[in-house]
Amino acid sequence: MNEPKVNLTEMLTNIGNTARIAAQGLATVPTTLKAAALRHAAAAIRADGPAILAANAQDIAAAEANGLSGAMLDRLRLDVARLEATAAGVEAVAGLPDPVGDVIDRAERPNGLILTRVRVPIGVIGIIYESRPNVTADAGALAVMAGNAAILRGGSEAIHSNRAIHAAMVRGLAAGGLPEGAVQLIQTTDRAAVGAMLAAEGLIDLIIPRGGKSLVARVQAEARVPVLAHLDGLNHSYVDRAADPAMARDIVVNAKLRRTGVCGATETLLIDRGFADPLPILTGLLDAGCELRGDAEVRALHPAILKANDDDWDTEYLDAILSVKLVDGVDAAIAHIAAHGSHHTDAIITADEPTADHFLARVDSAIVMWNASTQFADGGEFGLGAEIGIATGRLHARGPVALEGLTTYKWIVRGTGQTRP
Amino acid sequence: MNEPKVNLTEMLTNIGNTARIAAQGLATVPTTLKAAALRHAAAAIRADGPAILAANAQDIAAAEANGLSGAMLDRLRLDVARLEATAAGVEAVAGLPDPVGDVIDRAERPNGLILTRVRVPIGVIGIIYESRPNVTADAGALAVMAGNAAILRGGSEAIHSNRAIHAAMVRGLAAGGLPEGAVQLIQTTDRAAVGAMLAAEGLIDLIIPRGGKSLVARVQAEARVPVLAHLDGLNHSYVDRAADPAMARDIVVNAKLRRTGVCGATETLLIDRGFADPLPILTGLLDAGCELRGDAEVRALHPAILKANDDDWDTEYLDAILSVKLVDGVDAAIAHIAAHGSHHTDAIITADEPTADHFLARVDSAIVMWNASTQFADGGEFGLGAEIGIATGRLHARGPVALEGLTTYKWIVRGTGQTRP
Repeated sequence: MNEPKVNLTEMLTNIGNTARIAAQGLATVPTTLKAAALRHAAAAIRADGPAILAANAQDIAAAEANGLSGAMLDRLRLDVARLEATAAGVEAVAGLPDPVGDVIDRAERPNGLILTRVRVPIGVIGIIYESRPNVTADAGALAVMAGNAAILRGGSEAIHSNRAIHAAMVRGLAAGGLPEGAVQLIQTTDRAAVGAMLAAEGLIDLIIPRGGKSLVARVQAEARVPVLAHLDGLNHSYVDRAADPAMARDIVVNAKLRRTGVCGATETLLIDRGFADPLPILTGLLDAGCELRGDAEVRALHPAILKANDDDWDTEYLDAILSVKLVDGVDAAIAHIAAHGSHHTDAIITADEPTADHFLARVDSAIVMWNASTQFADGGEFGLGAEIGIATGRLHARGPVALEGLTTYKWIVRGTGQTRP
Repeated sequence: MNEPKVNLTEMLTNIGNTARIAAQGLATVPTTLKAAALRHAAAAIRADGPAILAANAQDIAAAEANGLSGAMLDRLRLDVARLEATAAGVEAVAGLPDPVGDVIDRAERPNGLILTRVRVPIGVIGIIYESRPNVTADAGALAVMAGNAAILRGGSEAIHSNRAIHAAMVRGLAAGGLPEGAVQLIQTTDRAAVGAMLAAEGLIDLIIPRGGKSLVARVQAEARVPVLAHLDGLNHSYVDRAADPAMARDIVVNAKLRRTGVCGATETLLIDRGFADPLPILTGLLDAGCELRGDAEVRALHPAILKANDDDWDTEYLDAILSVKLVDGVDAAIAHIAAHGSHHTDAIITADEPTADHFLARVDSAIVMWNASTQFADGGEFGLGAEIGIATGRLHARGPVALEGLTTYKWIVRGTGQTRP
């Protein structure tokens, strides 16, 4: 890319200051105006459809010339249907309930002071993502609807698509009366811009990486700014002795194979040694094309099962591969998950409610499930309308993060002249 | 200190693993048992009173030999009354409502899945503090009541006092049936232990520094673990043109002078040029012994007012000194606070409710106040029962942090065999 050399720190300081001013304005914009501006942005994306698709064709041509793989090309590619889905996604965000201004709690003190805790936007959100250009619209819309300014940094391979979508968004938001700097896109493809974002303490309040493991790992390792992210979805489904056999088979096959590349996919199957008949689950998986890996005890159950190595218990396959282990009841399952899980999503299948409650209380994951497929780990499925990501850390927000996770709160104290004795 | 050389990383890994196991146990201990164990701990502190005071006398003697200042000696010193207050503080924590298990929200999805978000402990909390030995009991009690394991690192000058209080706490908690590692104290006084805590990703989930600016600044700069802290309390009181003159004087004098060394003290007074008579406020402050600093316009109001430098607007005096500025109305006050504040506590004094609401909505601080003294910025005054600190960051918890701030949540999904289409 023949770009002029940019002073990244200076560039980011300017972008950050612009974002802070925009955030101060956005913080008090009423819900109806934010929603109307997002509908303008959706309309602008539709109106710019041909230009956006032409920009995308440029990116696709460059990616093909650079030998990008089929899956990456697919993530990069836009067509009329995907662009319409992107615009509709922005409209859907406009229809979500606005958490800003919600009163979390209220108390009157004996001295007459009235305290309320009120939801307010976080401020400036940095989003670092890879090849999917629709994130430019999705993430920008979520940030703005929660009253935040967004600084977006997409993958260099999608730069023309991102610029075109961003230009449409900005035109729409401005038509709706929102501040200029509500959504900014880092225009340079210099990879060092990511490092500058990660170091931007005071300019960016929160960074959300959306992409593959290497991106997320880099962000988590380098960031001086708080990060909301998940690195791994090493999820377990545990079939208890009291599980209904048919339900167990259906849930496990779905949890592993519905889509193998999503972060909610099950990667390890734990089966209680007290469960009467594991074979239908295993044949169900094998018949559906899943590779199974286990130790000698598991391999004795079916000749097609391959040998598991020690690494298998710590591997997120994101593929039609499943590690299988027999355990002695729910506490052994909980211990295995504590040792090998990634605190994302773990499920128990059992007809025994006390056993389920035991598991749900003791497994320390963002999402714990009873008699359901781990593939439900998704903001849309949770009724959040959209998600900006799933968080596996313990602070601020956990599990699917949508509008509420993009807010914080302030304490408002109303007095009548009180002084402290 | 003649201590054997310790491998700090190894030590911290052992402490961290012990804490994690304790945290797993604590997470499901019922409220009544946690409260009873804390009452045992309070009783043990009382029972060990003579031993704790003897240990404290050792610390005081060493501190005097090292030439510690009067204020530091005072913070370090325990006596019968302070020790009783410490034990009573632990009992007070035992009486607080337990947030663990609270259902934040609940939803039933069209497919029948029932989702609840339930408060759970964060896990392992590291607390790094300075000379006050009562923090050993206070912070340990708060962490445990919220179901967390605590790793405490106190100031080396208080090591004997801290060890004695910790030993009593642990004996009491064990008598109450809590896990051994619920509260651990770093026994070495090697300063590098702080660095090892700050680097302990995965072992410690959250670090809370309690102490002076240099400690907090170091923790914020070095930590690879999330931190909840405030560095500065550069708080403003703004007297609007519509303020009641007597109320304004009383609030401002209290906000500055009640205790000048607390983080909720006002450091800058902003007065609306439209406010009729600022002189009684200024003389009220001067008569009470406060040094005032202002520009030429302010100095023209009273001959005793000294000249303010540019630095004064960014200085947290923590002393009987106040910078004073005249501004053109509420928006100029908001702009000054945005440029110079530390997002801690800022107050408006006005009889005009719309102006107050304008200020409360636009000042981006953890605590915003109307017609009240900024000195109320305190967890006890907020009815939280106790506080582990005040947070000025934007994520997770803001303002006074007590039990709720020491928890997070998990999503519990209950199904009846649902698979995702």
